[in-house]
Amino acid sequence: MKVYEFPGFPNPARVRIALAEKGLIDQVEFVSVNVPEGEHLSDAFRAKNPSAAVPMLELEDGTCIAECTAITEYLDQIDGAPTLTGKSPKERAVIHMMQRRAEAGLLDAVATYFHHATPGLGADVEGYQNAEWGEHQKENALKGMRYLDGVLADRPYLAGNEFSVADITAFAGLIFAGFADITVPQDCANLKDWHMRVSARPSIAA
Amino acid sequence: MKVYEFPGFPNPARVRIALAEKGLIDQVEFVSVNVPEGEHLSDAFRAKNPSAAVPMLELEDGTCIAECTAITEYLDQIDGAPTLTGKSPKERAVIHMMQRRAEAGLLDAVATYFHHATPGLGADVEGYQNAEWGEHQKENALKGMRYLDGVLADRPYLAGNEFSVADITAFAGLIFAGFADITVPQDCANLKDWHMRVSARPSIAA
Repeated sequence: MKVYEFPGFPNPARVRIALAEKGLIDQVEFVSVNVPEGEHLSDAFRAKNPSAAVPMLELEDGTCIAECTAITEYLDQIDGAPTLTGKSPKERAVIHMMQRRAEAGLLDAVATYFHHATPGLGADVEGYQNAEWGEHQKENALKGMRYLDGVLADRPYLAGNEFSVADITAFAGLIFAGFADITVPQDCANLKDWHMRVSARPSIAA
Repeated sequence: MKVYEFPGFPNPARVRIALAEKGLIDQVEFVSVNVPEGEHLSDAFRAKNPSAAVPMLELEDGTCIAECTAITEYLDQIDGAPTLTGKSPKERAVIHMMQRRAEAGLLDAVATYFHHATPGLGADVEGYQNAEWGEHQKENALKGMRYLDGVLADRPYLAGNEFSVADITAFAGLIFAGFADITVPQDCANLKDWHMRVSARPSIAA
């Protein structure tokens, strides 16, 4: 299988981490898409992913899977041993919920700030920008950090006792926050501690 | 189990349809939350769902599951026979991808238009509004409809030959578009045909 990505960017990092956690890195051919130059907006790439975004997974039969959560779902099922998306119905539900909260409340909020209230990837790539909306989403990102900090007060990982795709999404959110110069509030001690622990995982530190 | 909702609203409809498709309606106690009056913003409800939104599923052990996709994941797994979220890894991946596209590109875009560029639920409930962003999202919703119309050119349902959670999300998007006076473009014949077929399903028409 092939993964189309731009190395180092937050969303591609989500799939890299999932692959490393699953021990599947060696099964993948990585294809670099030059996002800063707008290659993801080309007709050739849009034919594979109409959403014009990386990462994207292409299977051997040519099926193209976009959206990080869909890619992780696939990777977590192919060896018959889901570990990132949960086993029991309740585990799966809690992980899905926390993943979506980390995505909407942190990662997507930071991304919107970056793409709308800063120069982002430059005028040629960004197109329409709404700075006021971007600033509003920065506030939401900070609220999201405080929410996640509260969640981590009584559990080691966002969905409970086990590392999951919810943690991967939130970690990518903090990578993006670093790019966008949004700092984790000083009083978010649980989130800072979690960030250090997750950063030290072999799937990320290696 | 209990489902907190406001009957007739688009997101609660997603869970109602999933329950009906799975034959689980009789196992649920529905609890009405008066969203037009702002009851979802109360401290009592936020204690159950910090995202302050319906629908929300409360399990017998008190676990609260928010986010429609997480609730559907739970419902689809509890009888051991997933039908709305796919069985094989590839089915699951395609359904997850199409669900997310229907959500981000249609349902959420329409919702943002409604809450930001119209009076929405009224000033007391809406709080911050950004009309320009709302209008931009209306354009994205129309693009989303054209994208889904294209997808339906060669398959009966959004993720292939079977009805799935992707169809439920898109159907809720068209319910919301009706509320918000956003009309499906005349030339989207595939989407209109799909809309009629889905509307006639017992889970929806009954």
